[in-house]
Amino acid sequence: MTSVLDRPEDFAASALSGFCAAYPGHVVSVPHGALRAGAVPPGKVAVVVGGGSGHYPAFLGYVGTGLADAAVAGDVFASPSTSAIASVARAAEAGGGVILGFGNYAGDVLNFGAAAERLRAEGIDARILAVTDDIASAGPGDRARRRGVAGDLLVFKIAGAAAEAGLDLDAVMDVALRANSRTMSFGMAFDGCTLPGHGAPLFTVPAGQVALGLGIHGEPGIRTQPLVPAAELARLLLEPLLAERPAGQDGRVAVVLNGLGRTKYEELFVLWHHLTGMLKDHGLTPVAPEIGEFVTSLDMEGCSLSILWLDDELEALWTAPADTPAFRRGSSGQVAPHRGAVRVADAAAAVPQASAAGRAAAPCIARVIARLADVLAGAEGELGRIDAIAGDGDHGQGMARGSAAAADAARQAVDAGAGPGTVLALAGDAWADRAGGTSGALWGVALRAWGQVLGDDAAPDAARVAQGARAALTAVTRLGGAQPGDKTLVDAFVPLVEALQTTDAPLAQAWSRGAQAATDAADATAHLTPRLGRARPLAERSIGHPDAGAVSLALCARTVAEVLAD
Amino acid sequence: MTSVLDRPEDFAASALSGFCAAYPGHVVSVPHGALRAGAVPPGKVAVVVGGGSGHYPAFLGYVGTGLADAAVAGDVFASPSTSAIASVARAAEAGGGVILGFGNYAGDVLNFGAAAERLRAEGIDARILAVTDDIASAGPGDRARRRGVAGDLLVFKIAGAAAEAGLDLDAVMDVALRANSRTMSFGMAFDGCTLPGHGAPLFTVPAGQVALGLGIHGEPGIRTQPLVPAAELARLLLEPLLAERPAGQDGRVAVVLNGLGRTKYEELFVLWHHLTGMLKDHGLTPVAPEIGEFVTSLDMEGCSLSILWLDDELEALWTAPADTPAFRRGSSGQVAPHRGAVRVADAAAAVPQASAAGRAAAPCIARVIARLADVLAGAEGELGRIDAIAGDGDHGQGMARGSAAAADAARQAVDAGAGPGTVLALAGDAWADRAGGTSGALWGVALRAWGQVLGDDAAPDAARVAQGARAALTAVTRLGGAQPGDKTLVDAFVPLVEALQTTDAPLAQAWSRGAQAATDAADATAHLTPRLGRARPLAERSIGHPDAGAVSLALCARTVAEVLAD
Repeated sequence: MTSVLDRPEDFAASALSGFCAAYPGHVVSVPHGALRAGAVPPGKVAVVVGGGSGHYPAFLGYVGTGLADAAVAGDVFASPSTSAIASVARAAEAGGGVILGFGNYAGDVLNFGAAAERLRAEGIDARILAVTDDIASAGPGDRARRRGVAGDLLVFKIAGAAAEAGLDLDAVMDVALRANSRTMSFGMAFDGCTLPGHGAPLFTVPAGQVALGLGIHGEPGIRTQPLVPAAELARLLLEPLLAERPAGQDGRVAVVLNGLGRTKYEELFVLWHHLTGMLKDHGLTPVAPEIGEFVTSLDMEGCSLSILWLDDELEALWTAPADTPAFRRGSSGQVAPHRGAVRVADAAAAVPQASAAGRAAAPCIARVIARLADVLAGAEGELGRIDAIAGDGDHGQGMARGSAAAADAARQAVDAGAGPGTVLALAGDAWADRAGGTSGALWGVALRAWGQVLGDDAAPDAARVAQGARAALTAVTRLGGAQPGDKTLVDAFVPLVEALQTTDAPLAQAWSRGAQAATDAADATAHLTPRLGRARPLAERSIGHPDAGAVSLALCARTVAEVLAD
Repeated sequence: MTSVLDRPEDFAASALSGFCAAYPGHVVSVPHGALRAGAVPPGKVAVVVGGGSGHYPAFLGYVGTGLADAAVAGDVFASPSTSAIASVARAAEAGGGVILGFGNYAGDVLNFGAAAERLRAEGIDARILAVTDDIASAGPGDRARRRGVAGDLLVFKIAGAAAEAGLDLDAVMDVALRANSRTMSFGMAFDGCTLPGHGAPLFTVPAGQVALGLGIHGEPGIRTQPLVPAAELARLLLEPLLAERPAGQDGRVAVVLNGLGRTKYEELFVLWHHLTGMLKDHGLTPVAPEIGEFVTSLDMEGCSLSILWLDDELEALWTAPADTPAFRRGSSGQVAPHRGAVRVADAAAAVPQASAAGRAAAPCIARVIARLADVLAGAEGELGRIDAIAGDGDHGQGMARGSAAAADAARQAVDAGAGPGTVLALAGDAWADRAGGTSGALWGVALRAWGQVLGDDAAPDAARVAQGARAALTAVTRLGGAQPGDKTLVDAFVPLVEALQTTDAPLAQAWSRGAQAATDAADATAHLTPRLGRARPLAERSIGHPDAGAVSLALCARTVAEVLAD
């Protein structure tokens, strides 16, 4: 949808107004378009680009040093009028003639062509530059009939850089036409776009399908096929372009991977992740590639890949500085030298050596954690089902993965001579790192805090264990922010800690009572509504069901009690 | 939808890989994140930001000079793990301590907090900076519970600039916390987003509604109401922020108008068009405002407005240079002085004075065009209905608007002493400019070409009129590219021109024959399929219906014949 608008017929004009207001350092508003703000050397060739609105940053976003001198904005997906183009071109003209650049669509061809005729009749040398990069729209033998898509950016950048470098009108046209003849794009669409004021999309792509070569306004494509993984999409984009590699070309390519609006940056980066390798495999070297949104189509879902087969002159022009609202080349300062080798290895903590008593007590801790890992592996499915009621259902998996990693770390720590506190702390770190998510982080800080209280010098007695439990609970509430009643593991943790602290009973008996209290409390969370960070529908869905984190904590408490009772 | 992916569980990692491959000049890849590429002064405070993936350019796109030293990327919408954060922070640390910046969400609070504890245990001074800008998520008295949204950019920019300026850890934290306490955001959503690998959106907004204050992962908002025009949406975004203006604040504000993914640039510019006036009305001066996508949420449809209430220090830090993949401040070169007064007035063509004979003949041309305007006004609805079968249905409106403007221009030209040729040429220009679209441009060049043949010095005879008609047809086919049989107005124009040229009959009789031939040919276009620039479904739909352009040309020919017969 296009949801933000006043009257549909005002959409393009309001967008133009807002654009000019947003970039006073780059552009000056003129009727029907925007003009480069800075002074222009007399005699410079003026590069004026344009077309329908709805394609931002095409074309307004290209106005600035090193790219376009002005842009003309038509209505959404409609060519600007002849007089609008001529009027903007007159304002941009600086004595060196004008190049009118646009994508090759019927309405634009008409109006830019008519504007050029009008300007010439007034004595302004005006040329037209129709970009024809979309290989899906016509064969290599019929290039003049090809549509213009994201190749606009490549061709206009070359023209803009050539004009900025002071070339005359003939020379700028020559290099721009050469760039156009060496620029090819291929696109794919996953879904259509909706015009301002319309309730339904202009065109659609069937769900689960990808339309290859579909035009950015719904013009016919090549074929529709089932959606495939990103690696295959990357191949589908690249291979048709390779077929038109100029003979003898040395492999340097300017590349634009363009999102059409709803296909977002991360998806483009996933494609680029694959394309970098594929380009290399084909002997191609991308020069200053651009990944992002350059020629959009309202909220259309899809993307395109454009290649400009470079030579020395084209490479210099492609990499020349530019500074526009939507496109910048060249640094704002000196590029600092690359930093040296990056330290990425974890600071491997040396295991502190424990006293003999500590070393003797440590294996018991490791055994408890190993048993927890066994039990949590068995409970993985059940905990996942409970979590799925109000969450993403990954709690069982996280607890199983975390406890397994903790058991490994604990065993290694024992073997390395650690005492009870270090064993527990290292187990906690491993748990957090492998489990991921909120509960992983909480279990990590809990075990680490508990271990710090236990220390490494003696077998912990019941009072020390209870004190550690209190420290663990404090760490959990400090880091997690949950209070009793919030329907989290804290609801089960609090009664466990209180049971451990309010008894003089031996350790096993204290744990047995604590485990029972934690289990009762976990069951009672079914009556609560979660308060922290849960969307409302999820929170409501969870009423009548216990919290997965509280249930797993109670399960762990019972397991410890069982081990101690053995 | 998120359509570009391989395995859902690899999405974030592949996107990170592609991002690092795309910006080798800005970043170095490290496990779980990206590190600023350039050398960093020893002792500089390291600003490390991060959070879940799916929010690009948050957070990877912020890495570079003047902003973040590194970013950590979690899974989609999931906090990075404690060890991932600690590992990236260790790589970024340059001896001045580390600030860990993130949006205030439970998982991030846990993991960044635990990472800070781990780093401190290793002797690295680490602080946490939780951004809390979303005023919809908690009241002004409960700021610490607010979520972090697009205010991330504002707060991180301040911290990054302060660190770049060489402030020490305490000083950077002070100014960053002050920035956070003065940063407020309010957002609205039109539709939800879809996680990679999921077939349905994570949450939805009812069609035709806007959800105010909805969180970027679907967290509860304030209310849902019917969608309203953009001017009202702008007010809904701005007013809640004004309520928290600090006492005595002088009106300078840093502003971020942020698109969440599917709400596109033009829509944001439409909002900005309204917001600039509203800010001024409230005595506020936006300083270096940013309009675009800064914290997205996959393909979520919506936007947010963020304000940072500036003071002198914050303004200097906000406007300080930065150079990252997604955010740049400071020019790549010298900003040229503003160009002087911009020539925007159309080069008002002086009306060339015609001979007496020419002046005498001109009113007849103007009468013909006035009659065309009457007829086309009456036919507007019918022509629109024909056009809607295979087009956007605006043909009737364009013809009515164009001919009315042409009639006005013709009358004025006659009054100014123009001859037949100039009257027709100026009528053509006016037609093209007011009608817009393809047919407007074609009618414009047709009348202009026709007028040039007629000249201004005599009443045109039948032969001259026929010769003008041929010139008009040539101009139309040259500019429009259509051939007979393409189902355009050319199909009716060709028989008209041939009838005019192949007879010695008087003008009125020749037009009568030509009009009949054009009408027959227009009817016959019902059997044709359009070939130029029409999407396939539209082309198929048009079979059995005549072309609107041909029908209107025939109607005009009949009208001319009637006027001449009178």
